[in-house]
Amino acid sequence: MTEREVAIVVGAGPGLGNALVRRFAEAGMSVAAISRKGSAPEAPEYRDLVHGYACDATIGDQVTAMFAQVTKDLGHPNLMAFNVGTWDRAGILDISDKLFEEAWRTGCFGGFLVGRAAAASMFPLGRGTIIFTGATGSIRGGAGFAAFAVPKFGLRALAQSMARELGPKGLHVAHVIIDGMIDEDGEAQSGGGLAPTAIAEAYYQLHRQQRSAWTHELDLRPAGEKF
Amino acid sequence: MTEREVAIVVGAGPGLGNALVRRFAEAGMSVAAISRKGSAPEAPEYRDLVHGYACDATIGDQVTAMFAQVTKDLGHPNLMAFNVGTWDRAGILDISDKLFEEAWRTGCFGGFLVGRAAAASMFPLGRGTIIFTGATGSIRGGAGFAAFAVPKFGLRALAQSMARELGPKGLHVAHVIIDGMIDEDGEAQSGGGLAPTAIAEAYYQLHRQQRSAWTHELDLRPAGEKF
Amino acid sequence: MTEREVAIVVGAGPGLGNALVRRFAEAGMSVAAISRKGSAPEAPEYRDLVHGYACDATIGDQVTAMFAQVTKDLGHPNLMAFNVGTWDRAGILDISDKLFEEAWRTGCFGGFLVGRAAAASMFPLGRGTIIFTGATGSIRGGAGFAAFAVPKFGLRALAQSMARELGPKGLHVAHVIIDGMIDEDGEAQSGGGLAPTAIAEAYYQLHRQQRSAWTHELDLRPAGEKF
Amino acid sequence: MTEREVAIVVGAGPGLGNALVRRFAEAGMSVAAISRKGSAPEAPEYRDLVHGYACDATIGDQVTAMFAQVTKDLGHPNLMAFNVGTWDRAGILDISDKLFEEAWRTGCFGGFLVGRAAAASMFPLGRGTIIFTGATGSIRGGAGFAAFAVPKFGLRALAQSMARELGPKGLHVAHVIIDGMIDEDGEAQSGGGLAPTAIAEAYYQLHRQQRSAWTHELDLRPAGEKF
Repeated sequence: MTEREVAIVVGAGPGLGNALVRRFAEAGMSVAAISRKGSAPEAPEYRDLVHGYACDATIGDQVTAMFAQVTKDLGHPNLMAFNVGTWDRAGILDISDKLFEEAWRTGCFGGFLVGRAAAASMFPLGRGTIIFTGATGSIRGGAGFAAFAVPKFGLRALAQSMARELGPKGLHVAHVIIDGMIDEDGEAQSGGGLAPTAIAEAYYQLHRQQRSAWTHELDLRPAGEKF
Repeated sequence: MTEREVAIVVGAGPGLGNALVRRFAEAGMSVAAISRKGSAPEAPEYRDLVHGYACDATIGDQVTAMFAQVTKDLGHPNLMAFNVGTWDRAGILDISDKLFEEAWRTGCFGGFLVGRAAAASMFPLGRGTIIFTGATGSIRGGAGFAAFAVPKFGLRALAQSMARELGPKGLHVAHVIIDGMIDEDGEAQSGGGLAPTAIAEAYYQLHRQQRSAWTHELDLRPAGEKF
Repeated sequence: MTEREVAIVVGAGPGLGNALVRRFAEAGMSVAAISRKGSAPEAPEYRDLVHGYACDATIGDQVTAMFAQVTKDLGHPNLMAFNVGTWDRAGILDISDKLFEEAWRTGCFGGFLVGRAAAASMFPLGRGTIIFTGATGSIRGGAGFAAFAVPKFGLRALAQSMARELGPKGLHVAHVIIDGMIDEDGEAQSGGGLAPTAIAEAYYQLHRQQRSAWTHELDLRPAGEKF
Repeated sequence: MTEREVAIVVGAGPGLGNALVRRFAEAGMSVAAISRKGSAPEAPEYRDLVHGYACDATIGDQVTAMFAQVTKDLGHPNLMAFNVGTWDRAGILDISDKLFEEAWRTGCFGGFLVGRAAAASMFPLGRGTIIFTGATGSIRGGAGFAAFAVPKFGLRALAQSMARELGPKGLHVAHVIIDGMIDEDGEAQSGGGLAPTAIAEAYYQLHRQQRSAWTHELDLRPAGEKF
């Protein structure tokens, strides 16, 4: 146990997940990087701060066990970011029962399980930040995107319900609408997508907000993105 | 087979379901009243028009079989209204995995199954109306309402995706936000809730809209309801 | 004075205005057709029901005088529809002070003046319908559309404020989002715009809604319109 | 002329205006504090950075002259924040023509004038940040708030139109929804309002965002605020 702040990133992996892990470590936080395989991002400069944990976020028991282990190893989480989802495009007649359900289980039910676990852990301490990753599909159900938009709308509903319940208890729940493609080279070129490091900075700033002026929802998009 | 229009009401039961069945029968449509038990609403004056079918709308095979049977008995549906959902209020820490999933399965996955089946049946004919029943929780995730709002947001995402895909193919997909409590005596008193017959009239008018001016979404609330 | 219902259509003219006048007359209402010139629509079959009045809806005194005259001639209004606006597209650097202000004066301030006058007239009777005509620009400020969207957003704010204040007093205030181009031949062809008669039918149905299930906002678009 | 960044705060005064001035100066920017009287905030520690200018933001010629003078004195602006509005509560029948128009002129037309002037100044350089201050009334027209919500909705329409036009040109246009009362002591107490310094921090972070991940809209509210 240390007095470092503790962050849990659910959905650590190439792109945004790893950028979140590195940004939080850069700020001096102990970071639990959660993925199905449990491999921590390559971050040699933050070797002592970043710890990989294996967890299938769609299975309640695994989520419970992971939070217990992280808390034991690193301390109670101050920040949890949920960054998991699928992306399938198909006309309504081509979406199978299985695809529709799996997309929801991964992108929404998993968010509920880790959101609830984070709330349970933070609630007694009356502080903590919970951030859910949304997308354009969180506020618009486009043609061919039912299996994408249904979980994303649902995740936004979850974030709102949690924010309205938990805000007065001192927990900051936020929903970030990422409007565009994430692109490792986003910074370098005009016309590119969102740079993961730039998104990660926004997440970190949400965590830093004072409780007299919290943001529940913000959008992020590249300068050139149509919206 | 007749040349009557055919309506399928999924979620026939006391309140709005029965009112929809009666309104569509009053308009001279053959009506399939769908419920788990298959009991048709008491509507003696429309005895020849209203037919009860048993179907669990959350099970794909049952939905497929029901649509086949209705089509064989009454003809291809012109109108399908989905009117099923649960209503549970609980703080985030008190929502079990099972409750969260069942609420979604009933209120959103079932809507997908019958929506997709209706689309498949209507698509070759290039006409038909599909109406999903929403609520205040479709656009606002209130404190204590995560298990209610997540399926309702998801159902709205589904309705939008279907409308945007199927509108240009001649299918009218609509989403009705019912903002307030449904109340059998709603008409009779000031300060009361929404009268089922008044809601049913709005659904019927949606079906009657010409394709040059379709409504995708409308709200309904009593005169005195705060919003 | 008769016991006919009385409708006031502000913005009577080719397209939607005239269609509203005709639809309300078809329903047996006495209709005051308001325009700057005061010429009533050609509607020979409703000659006895339709009356033209000249009024500049952006001038308070003219609005007050017009409502007084209509009330004296036809009776207290049961229905008022505001259907006036400008449509200018220009980049932000090309919008003059004058254009920006005039667009607002015509499309929003005029709506306030006639909305307030209608409310004042209906309030003592505790009944009446007030409908404002919106557009895509009511909910989305597109590039090049500042001078269009600012009044339209404002008119929607007005409609919401009035609905929330006046609903509990028995006045039904609605806002219709017309998403697409109005097209006299909209009905006749696929790929066409919104038929004025189809829009007018939606306005009339709003007026017919029972007070246990009022719609505040609905959208209207052709089957093939992207949204 | 220096190489310092230049900020223009329109609506410098007690509360948020002064906090913005101080936050931007703290970051080392030259700050033009704009008010009708032209008095600069008391900020002795930033004496060399903060400059007061008198300007009535609702008068086009004054806005043009002010931008020219600031540019001459301090350089081309990198950041402009518009923070002006009125707050009047009245039932629809009690809003005078004059009140309705003045509220719009102050809260929306002024925003257009300074937003257009900022865009004109930043456009040739292909960079700059323009931030408009919104409120709950920007997205909800409450009972008794027509004269407040109409300008605020309009200002949001303006912000959207400008963002969609100017984003691809390198200008970052943002809209901040302040949901709650601003309270100088907001930080110090639970149950308090929004601390101006906390809001100002959010504005500054918007300006610092990289162009691969810009926020167009965010909300800010105290932890305990209902929404």
